[in-house]
Amino acid sequence: MIDYRITSKEGYDDKIGDLVTMLEYTRATILEDIEDLTPEDLDFLPDESSNSIGALLLHIAAIEFVHQVFSFENRDLNNEELLKWDTALSLGAKARAEIKNKPLEYYTKILTEIRERTLTLFKTQQDSWLYEEKPWGKMNNYWYWFHVMEDELNHRGQIRVIKRLLENHQ
Amino acid sequence: MIDYRITSKEGYDDKIGDLVTMLEYTRATILEDIEDLTPEDLDFLPDESSNSIGALLLHIAAIEFVHQVFSFENRDLNNEELLKWDTALSLGAKARAEIKNKPLEYYTKILTEIRERTLTLFKTQQDSWLYEEKPWGKMNNYWYWFHVMEDELNHRGQIRVIKRLLENHQ
Repeated sequence: MIDYRITSKEGYDDKIGDLVTMLEYTRATILEDIEDLTPEDLDFLPDESSNSIGALLLHIAAIEFVHQVFSFENRDLNNEELLKWDTALSLGAKARAEIKNKPLEYYTKILTEIRERTLTLFKTQQDSWLYEEKPWGKMNNYWYWFHVMEDELNHRGQIRVIKRLLENHQ
Repeated sequence: MIDYRITSKEGYDDKIGDLVTMLEYTRATILEDIEDLTPEDLDFLPDESSNSIGALLLHIAAIEFVHQVFSFENRDLNNEELLKWDTALSLGAKARAEIKNKPLEYYTKILTEIRERTLTLFKTQQDSWLYEEKPWGKMNNYWYWFHVMEDELNHRGQIRVIKRLLENHQ
């Protein structure tokens, strides 16, 4: 039975633990949504301007990675990182052309590796870190990680619509 | 310029203020997504098993209402409330048949009224209330309001897919 409580989380400071609970719940629901998808399902496009579920999964991983860099390293992506993640970050035509023919494990492995680093990094911080503001704008670390969650939940909704269109298409 | 910070919010206890910031940001992004939609757009169905954007908006309002009842009144819906909200809560065929031919203002008025009550009720509580558990299961008020947010963000993602399918359909 799932525990529908947000409570303190061992190994994390108070509010960081709340955030981790929310992020982990969000991720668990996505992994459940996609657990049976084949490579063909992951590449399915409801229409020519859509994103595939595979591209959305890689986008979710990319967004988490860039927010690690913004929040824990206080910098922008370097050229090497930008080259690696640009397609998944931008989605659209380039993602439709390049992100395909991969099994589910390709995506879940990347998601898991990036998430493990997030959790390790969160353990090194206190709640006061959440309120540290960035020199480049009205942004704090708390908002960055809220945004990782809200972007992922938004894409979960898209994935669910695409899955239903896929079922009706078959 | 939007303020991308989660900080303490006047009139609310500490963590309740964080939650309110997240809920209000979520709502603002949805209202922006739908601001130009006509009654026909709100009724558009990408396929015969889809939900319309209008039905999803009423569902978002319904979910917030039932979580007010669960969390602030510690009870389930009564028969009158269930009769009023059942279609929007359940979505699917009944919602496709009954929720339509309404202008945008019909939906935004209901969303706004329910949200105003939520904010008023949040102002009456301290953070300790977030951790109060329910007699009917492993649930606390904090999770309930996280769930209102995560469900709304999920539906925002669905609304964005439906909007794009609508644009390609026209």
